[in-house]
Amino acid sequence: MAVVNPSIGVDIGGTKVLAAVVDGLGRVLDTEATPTPGPGSGIDNASVQEVEDALVEVVQRLIAQHGRMTVGVAAAGFVARDGERVRFAPHLPWRDEPLAEKLGKRLGHRVVSRVLVDNDASAALWAEARFGAAQAAPDALMITLGTGIGGSLVVGGRLVRGVNGMAGEYGHMQVVPAGRLCPCGGRGCWEQYCSGRALARAAADVGSSLSGPALTAAAREGDPAAMEAYSVVGTWLGVGIANLVAALDPPLVVVGGGVSAAGDLLLSPAREALEQSLVGAGHRDLPKVVGAVLGPMAGVVGAADLARVASRPTRVGRWGRAPSRVARGRARRR
Amino acid sequence: MAVVNPSIGVDIGGTKVLAAVVDGLGRVLDTEATPTPGPGSGIDNASVQEVEDALVEVVQRLIAQHGRMTVGVAAAGFVARDGERVRFAPHLPWRDEPLAEKLGKRLGHRVVSRVLVDNDASAALWAEARFGAAQAAPDALMITLGTGIGGSLVVGGRLVRGVNGMAGEYGHMQVVPAGRLCPCGGRGCWEQYCSGRALARAAADVGSSLSGPALTAAAREGDPAAMEAYSVVGTWLGVGIANLVAALDPPLVVVGGGVSAAGDLLLSPAREALEQSLVGAGHRDLPKVVGAVLGPMAGVVGAADLARVASRPTRVGRWGRAPSRVARGRARRR
Repeated sequence: MAVVNPSIGVDIGGTKVLAAVVDGLGRVLDTEATPTPGPGSGIDNASVQEVEDALVEVVQRLIAQHGRMTVGVAAAGFVARDGERVRFAPHLPWRDEPLAEKLGKRLGHRVVSRVLVDNDASAALWAEARFGAAQAAPDALMITLGTGIGGSLVVGGRLVRGVNGMAGEYGHMQVVPAGRLCPCGGRGCWEQYCSGRALARAAADVGSSLSGPALTAAAREGDPAAMEAYSVVGTWLGVGIANLVAALDPPLVVVGGGVSAAGDLLLSPAREALEQSLVGAGHRDLPKVVGAVLGPMAGVVGAADLARVASRPTRVGRWGRAPSRVARGRARRR
Repeated sequence: MAVVNPSIGVDIGGTKVLAAVVDGLGRVLDTEATPTPGPGSGIDNASVQEVEDALVEVVQRLIAQHGRMTVGVAAAGFVARDGERVRFAPHLPWRDEPLAEKLGKRLGHRVVSRVLVDNDASAALWAEARFGAAQAAPDALMITLGTGIGGSLVVGGRLVRGVNGMAGEYGHMQVVPAGRLCPCGGRGCWEQYCSGRALARAAADVGSSLSGPALTAAAREGDPAAMEAYSVVGTWLGVGIANLVAALDPPLVVVGGGVSAAGDLLLSPAREALEQSLVGAGHRDLPKVVGAVLGPMAGVVGAADLARVASRPTRVGRWGRAPSRVARGRARRR
C-alpha cells in the first residue's frame, strides 16, 4: 500500500511509552515502545530527564527505520494552548515544562518542523473523529474510562481545549455533595463513582474480589456480582453523560479506555440511565453512546495526525498549531 | 447620534413580550411591550395564536414608527439549529412550531429578510459577547438566574447551540443524587438549589419570609437570615460553575438574570466555592465570574443583533443563518 504523509505519534502511558508511525489515513505502520520510567508501579516518581530520555529513544528508533518525520506527543496533563508547554501533569514530574522545545532540541534535524504536544484525551478524540467512531459527527464528546476519567470535546469539528488547556476534566465534576474523597482534593468527583477503580470498588461492595479483565470475563459469563458492578458503574456513567449532554447537546458520545472493553455490559446501563436522567428526553434526539474503535492506538494516531496537520504551512491556525478542524474526506480523496 | 443598521429584537418573557429597535452598536432606540397572553400568573396556558398575536402586535407598532427592519425573536425554548422552529417550550404552547415562517407570513413585506428565532439564553449571551460583559473573551459561558436557570455558551466566538438546539440546559445537571424533585421530572437538578425559587426556599429554611427584591434589600442591610440565604445559593452557584469549568475551561463566566442583581452578595460566595471546588485550582488561571451588564435588555439586544448579522447576504453561514461569530470591532470601525 502507498504510504501517504506519515508522521510519528507518541503516547506516554502508565506502563509504557508507545510511539508509532501513522500514515495520513490513520493506519499504524510501525510501533516502538519502552517501559515508562519510574521505580515500581508507574510513573509518579520518574524524573523529568528520564521521561524525556524515553520519549527521545522511541522516536529515534522509528526515525532510524523510517526517516525524518513530524512528531506529536500525547501527554496525560494540562497542555498550554500553544502546544508547547505541559502546565501540569498529575502523574508526571512536569510543572510548566517546555516539552515541545526540549524534545525539538534533542531530536534536532531528525524531525520535520517542531514537535507538537497535546493532551492525551484530546488526541484520542481527534483520532476517533478523523478515523474512528466520531467520523460523522461535527460535535462529539469522549469519555475515557481508565483508572480515572479522561475527557475531551469537539465542537464544530474543532477540539475545545480551554483557556488553560484544561477542558474535558469531566472526571472532577462533583456528582455527590460531600461524597467520596478524590486525590484531586475534592469530594464526590464523578471518577470516584465511574472508572476502573470505581468498578473494582463496586465489585467489592457486592462481595466480589475480582477486578480488571477477570471482572469483565466474569460479567460476560453471567456472574451476578460482576454484572451488578458493571450496572452500578454504567448507571453512574449514564448520569454523568446526561449532565454533559444537558450542557452541550452533542449528537454523539464516545466511550473509550480500558473499562469500555466491556462493551454493552457498561454501555447498556449507561444508555438507560442517560434516557432517564436527561432533560427533555421526550423532545429531543438522544445522543448515540458508542464505544471507541481505535482502542489503545487512539493516542498515538491522534497525536501523529495533529502534528501532521499542524505542520502544513497552509493550514497553520491561530496559535501557529493545528487548526483543529476535522478535515473529513481529505484522506479518502487521496 | 447616527442610527446604524437598526433591527428589531423581541423577547418573550413570563410577564411581558418586549420588543426593541436596536442599532448596530447594541443601543436600544425604542421599545414596545404587551402583557404576555395567558390567564393568571404567566404564560403556561396561552394559546399558540395569542402569543403569536402579541409578537406581531409589538413588532408592527415599532415598524410603523421606524420602518421596515430585520426581526429576531428570543424564546425560552429549544430552537432548532436552522433558526426556524421552536421544538419545545416548557412554558409556552409550542411543540415543533414553525414560528419564524408563521411570523414571516403575517408580517409580510414589513420585515426585511426572514424572521430569525433563537433561544433566549443564547440571545442574552450573544448580546453580552457583542456589547457587554463578555466582549474580551473568545470563550464564555453564561448562567441566567431567574425562576430557574438559563444557560448558554460561546466557544471560539461562536454560540454553541447543540444538535437539538438544547445546549446550555445547565439547570438540569444533577448535583444531588435523589435530591429535590424538579418539574422536568428529574431529581437533584442544579436549579432546585440555585435559582430565584431556591433563594426563597433557602430564606425560608433560615426563618425568613422574604423573597425577591425585599430579600435582596434585607441582605444588603445586613439581615443575617437574608445574607445566609444568598450564601447558600451563591455556594451552589460556585459548585455548579466549577463543574462547568472543569468540563469547558472558559476564561469567563457571566451571571445574569434577576437574582444576579444582588451582585457580590451572590457572586462572592460563588467565587469562593468555585475556587474550593475547581480541579487543579492551583495550576490554572481561574475564570472571572462577573455579573451581566445588559440586564433585562440582553434578550432583545441579542435577538436583534443575531437577526441583523444573519440578514447580511455575505455572511450567511452553514445553515443559512447567523454565522455566530462575534465580530468584535466591526461596529466600532463605523
